[in-house]
Amino acid sequence: MTQSEKKHIKQLQQKKYRNLYGSFVVEGLKSIRDFLAAGYIPEKIYSTVPFEQMKNQDLPVEIISEKNLRQISFLKNPKDALAIIKIPKSLSLPQSGWIIALDNLQDPGNLGTIIRTADWFGIKNIVCSLDTVDCYNPKVVQATMGSLANVSVFYTDLSNFLSKSRLPIFGACMQGKNIYQSLFPHQGILVVGNEGNGISNHIKGLITNKITIPKHQKSTADSLNAAIATTIFVSKIMREIN
Amino acid sequence: MTQSEKKHIKQLQQKKYRNLYGSFVVEGLKSIRDFLAAGYIPEKIYSTVPFEQMKNQDLPVEIISEKNLRQISFLKNPKDALAIIKIPKSLSLPQSGWIIALDNLQDPGNLGTIIRTADWFGIKNIVCSLDTVDCYNPKVVQATMGSLANVSVFYTDLSNFLSKSRLPIFGACMQGKNIYQSLFPHQGILVVGNEGNGISNHIKGLITNKITIPKHQKSTADSLNAAIATTIFVSKIMREIN
Repeated sequence: MTQSEKKHIKQLQQKKYRNLYGSFVVEGLKSIRDFLAAGYIPEKIYSTVPFEQMKNQDLPVEIISEKNLRQISFLKNPKDALAIIKIPKSLSLPQSGWIIALDNLQDPGNLGTIIRTADWFGIKNIVCSLDTVDCYNPKVVQATMGSLANVSVFYTDLSNFLSKSRLPIFGACMQGKNIYQSLFPHQGILVVGNEGNGISNHIKGLITNKITIPKHQKSTADSLNAAIATTIFVSKIMREIN
Repeated sequence: MTQSEKKHIKQLQQKKYRNLYGSFVVEGLKSIRDFLAAGYIPEKIYSTVPFEQMKNQDLPVEIISEKNLRQISFLKNPKDALAIIKIPKSLSLPQSGWIIALDNLQDPGNLGTIIRTADWFGIKNIVCSLDTVDCYNPKVVQATMGSLANVSVFYTDLSNFLSKSRLPIFGACMQGKNIYQSLFPHQGILVVGNEGNGISNHIKGLITNKITIPKHQKSTADSLNAAIATTIFVSKIMREIN
């Protein structure tokens, strides 16, 4: 592989270059195969191990040394392969089913974990405010463990999206109905807020169903991690409606 | 503050020095106050803001500059204060109530999140295998957001602990009873495994109640994050028994 290819890959750590080139990086054969199976288009696959071609596909694979992989990998412990994958064209915003709406979520690990959890429970759509961390950020892609391939992530003016939606809008609030005493409909939107500040004020006003995750009486915790709170909701909702 | 104090604090990033000196670092006034309120003994508190003394306590506070705090902080964005806190003496292993048992958990963020979630739901005890990440690791302490002060974390031969316990032992397994169709007793042990390899074989044999978190039929996810799986269990258990 050439120096210019190495440079190109390093650039894709940054959002501005991902937007410029319309591509992002996926590491590890298992994850790469998840993206290919979901119909994502690879620009290039660099692998240290033989890469079995998939049916009816002529994949742009280059076998590289482990030394080269160490040079291009974003990981402390590089895996077996790295691929440059095309960012898919945006679909139109979802209007039905259960949707997770993220309001200024900042931590890549949290977004990745939420995508992975959504995939597990069969939630297909996540709508993010424009200031939420980019889902093609390498740390996000890594934390999804391939699940980003199976969940559609949208970026839009969240306030506008929620205002126009006809779905009931649920959000975790300090003073709301106990989640364990709540029944959830077959479709709706779950709003999750920023790690430090929770749901922003202009979004709070759009929530139609305020819900609380009750805390144990002896707990001194102020809040739950954003991905954990999301999981408590999603686990309750999906179990109820399936 | 002196150079030797700065050096001492840096050393406490490493487990060997934490064990040698019997102390660890907590950052941020809110978390420091959580530890003091829970009875932890501070060796020294370095604060950039006035630190209100607590009742009947003569706290070893030194006001320092923000520049000094930046030099000693383990965080990219230092908070308002940093304290050296004594590691408490080990209590005897818990024998009742709900206990989370961690088998070779490696990610500091996961351990921190599990401790924070345990605190929220009122679980007081976490028993870890000897190869689980140290709970006084700065990244763990940070991720607990002060909740480490309210949860007792033990390190022991997990296999031995589980063998001797009379409590029912629950574990997440691929082939187990559906969690949503399971009823949980008022006390028990929940075993959570390593991020990559799950529960180790010698521990698996000790599980008396194998439980599965069912996956959506269309999901291609292989597994859930360890802290997420723990949350799904704890949320279900605590809601049921409270």
